Amino acid sequence: MIDDLALFADLYELTMAQAFYQQGMFAQATYSLFIRQYPPNRAFLVAAGLEDVLDYLENLRFSQASLDYLRSIGIFDSNFLKYLKDLRFTGSVRAIPEGRLFFTDEPVLEVTAPIIEAQIGETFIINQINFQSLLTTKSARCMLAAPGCSLADFGSRRTHGIDAALKMARCGYIAGFQSTSNVLASQRYGIPPSGTMAHSFISSFAVEIDAFRAYAASFPDRAVLLLDTYDTIEGAYNAVTVAKEMEAAGHKLVAVRLDSGNFVDLSKQVRRILDQADLRYVKIVASGGLDEYEIDTLLQCHAPIDIFGVGTKVGVSADAPWSDMAYKLVAYNGRPVMKLSTEKVSLPGAKQVFRLYDTNGKFPRDIIAPSDENPPGGEALLQTVMSGGRRTAPSPRLDVIRGTLANDLRRLDDSHKGLYNPPHYPVAISANLQQLTLQVRSTIQEDLG
Amino acid sequence: MIDDLALFADLYELTMAQAFYQQGMFAQATYSLFIRQYPPNRAFLVAAGLEDVLDYLENLRFSQASLDYLRSIGIFDSNFLKYLKDLRFTGSVRAIPEGRLFFTDEPVLEVTAPIIEAQIGETFIINQINFQSLLTTKSARCMLAAPGCSLADFGSRRTHGIDAALKMARCGYIAGFQSTSNVLASQRYGIPPSGTMAHSFISSFAVEIDAFRAYAASFPDRAVLLLDTYDTIEGAYNAVTVAKEMEAAGHKLVAVRLDSGNFVDLSKQVRRILDQADLRYVKIVASGGLDEYEIDTLLQCHAPIDIFGVGTKVGVSADAPWSDMAYKLVAYNGRPVMKLSTEKVSLPGAKQVFRLYDTNGKFPRDIIAPSDENPPGGEALLQTVMSGGRRTAPSPRLDVIRGTLANDLRRLDDSHKGLYNPPHYPVAISANLQQLTLQVRSTIQEDLG
Repeated sequence: MIDDLALFADLYELTMAQAFYQQGMFAQATYSLFIRQYPPNRAFLVAAGLEDVLDYLENLRFSQASLDYLRSIGIFDSNFLKYLKDLRFTGSVRAIPEGRLFFTDEPVLEVTAPIIEAQIGETFIINQINFQSLLTTKSARCMLAAPGCSLADFGSRRTHGIDAALKMARCGYIAGFQSTSNVLASQRYGIPPSGTMAHSFISSFAVEIDAFRAYAASFPDRAVLLLDTYDTIEGAYNAVTVAKEMEAAGHKLVAVRLDSGNFVDLSKQVRRILDQADLRYVKIVASGGLDEYEIDTLLQCHAPIDIFGVGTKVGVSADAPWSDMAYKLVAYNGRPVMKLSTEKVSLPGAKQVFRLYDTNGKFPRDIIAPSDENPPGGEALLQTVMSGGRRTAPSPRLDVIRGTLANDLRRLDDSHKGLYNPPHYPVAISANLQQLTLQVRSTIQEDLG
Repeated sequence: MIDDLALFADLYELTMAQAFYQQGMFAQATYSLFIRQYPPNRAFLVAAGLEDVLDYLENLRFSQASLDYLRSIGIFDSNFLKYLKDLRFTGSVRAIPEGRLFFTDEPVLEVTAPIIEAQIGETFIINQINFQSLLTTKSARCMLAAPGCSLADFGSRRTHGIDAALKMARCGYIAGFQSTSNVLASQRYGIPPSGTMAHSFISSFAVEIDAFRAYAASFPDRAVLLLDTYDTIEGAYNAVTVAKEMEAAGHKLVAVRLDSGNFVDLSKQVRRILDQADLRYVKIVASGGLDEYEIDTLLQCHAPIDIFGVGTKVGVSADAPWSDMAYKLVAYNGRPVMKLSTEKVSLPGAKQVFRLYDTNGKFPRDIIAPSDENPPGGEALLQTVMSGGRRTAPSPRLDVIRGTLANDLRRLDDSHKGLYNPPHYPVAISANLQQLTLQVRSTIQEDLG
């Protein structure tokens, strides 16, 4: 995206790095990335964004232009800048793979490296994994609300910027969307592109039916006609006329799209108009301010909608645009560390998350344990994905990640997938981790006097 | 950001373009960008993002790789792809300059060009101006809530992606923030960088005061010490000790930072501790989940906070992460057009916005009029910024844009700047525009029969 992302960092990452450098602190540090609290109405999150983090770490280097800029700020020492010039990420990354579910307090990623290398990545790592996990979670919730329907990502115009639009397409696809409207994302990630037409297309013609005919002529096998520019019901009759003309020419209208008004009433009326004209194969697409809540309401009211185009509210995770995801030092030079700030306590030491399976293959609970604890059973979720600064294996294909999520969601009890205030999934802290936490806390409190 | 943004478009921009091409529709079209409804608690928006739109339009071209990708989708005609290969944006753009206030229904930007050129930019244009206007508006609200205080952008870790983080820094600076934490944004936009230290810095040392001393040694004239890693009050006493050591060495501690807990109580206690140690010059920074609402509450409670670091909630415009901003065709081939969809009616024709001034230099109201109407008085807000596909003038410097916003905010009545449900600013539709709207509506309705 940008060649030189080394400066994509909060200034304090670099000032702390200089202080570490000047103190001669080059020992190994481990940082954990996790959320403390669920965003509203969530009881699970989907891991996403790891791919970008690994790219970033593999390519991390300070260009001469970046070093010159840092020098110009006037607070960096020339020996430290020389050190930065040769800095590469040489550490390891353990992570819960993309597409897997994770829960509060669980490290979704741990970085172990000389402290400067591990600290510097904080801003980028949180940035990418936080928002991609939020967007994938929102998308997964939409899929859960629309069983049997298809979803398409229409979010590009309302996401916060270019990067967000491209990643939204990828997040939606991981969640099970059938397509994205964004052509660049489609090219980059190999996601099927889809699209219909805008109101401007209709209004550029003197009358609606001429616009429908022109579009059908250009795309005889891919046409989706937008009905609501002037009047949705009139639009539906015009679409029927054009669909019949298409049939006569050996083609089929794919779908019609509703973009405003009362979707329950309109979809039922339009379905009836289509069916009465023997156009049962023509699907109905709805779009405009839809997310899991609206989709659920529409389907509860039996709105005969086949495809939902979701944009605005999904592309910004409107009801949960942020989380409290944090990247915290948990060990330095072999010493486990933690934070005691009010409501911001962290768990010390490198950790592993074990996911148990019951006899039906469902997840009854997770256990967070020190990474060196004998497995309490279940599946160890964090995998070593980078070692010595290089990926340990090629990244999984996007459709594998999509399958991973589908599989995890099947194994999660339905109660935790509810749209409104779902009960939390049980996450236990192993006895060893509890003991370590108490130990570290008491050491700190002794030091505090 | 990305060299080849031509494919950063919803697929339908390109399918519609092919249909226009095949219909021989190359006449001039005008599109208006506007919002219909204010996001919650807003009665003004700040224009931002134009700079990126002009860059995009000046550089719009389809690379061979992009054309190859489009061909591979299998729905584009080879003559049309040949046409795309040579396509450049040759049109004009009129816009309300960055940093100016705009209101519902007012076109913040109008594009006039051969219809294909004007249509293709829709996705990018909405994407950039929508989110940048939202972030600048949120930032301006924070400034309004914190008179006499300094604000710093700490949002990079929670914005939705890289583009959003960089633009957030710029939006905050337009709104009056003193600095950004993002070093890349600081380099790119010439914004002062700022930063403090993370909890991880503290916990990498065995005891807190050693971390404070190390940081002060590295940054004797720029140190801001973070107090809440273990206990804010203990942290404050440690900071006093280090500040006194710094004084003895001829330096001054700049500030201390609170990042959790009850900011009202803690800031008062910490201020007292600092003052009792004759450290009145040491400022207090607060950060952590702050936006205009929290800042307002803190200052109402007389919390002695000098600097607010705003991140999470500002960087995603948490209470208003989206708007209904739309880019609508308003004229084609000399014919004014509009949409009649439920609650999505648009105003036909190219328009101008006139802002009146009262005798005190304040804004009493705006008037939206057809662009060719004799000025009803006041200042015409839309300026021609691009003509024949090229900028008509160099872009204003960032501090000029910042001054523009400060100036506009001074002239807006305070009532419209309220944080909660402010009354709407009066925006009138000129008699001519009302008449044109009725005329176009009745023509459409006749056609609908």
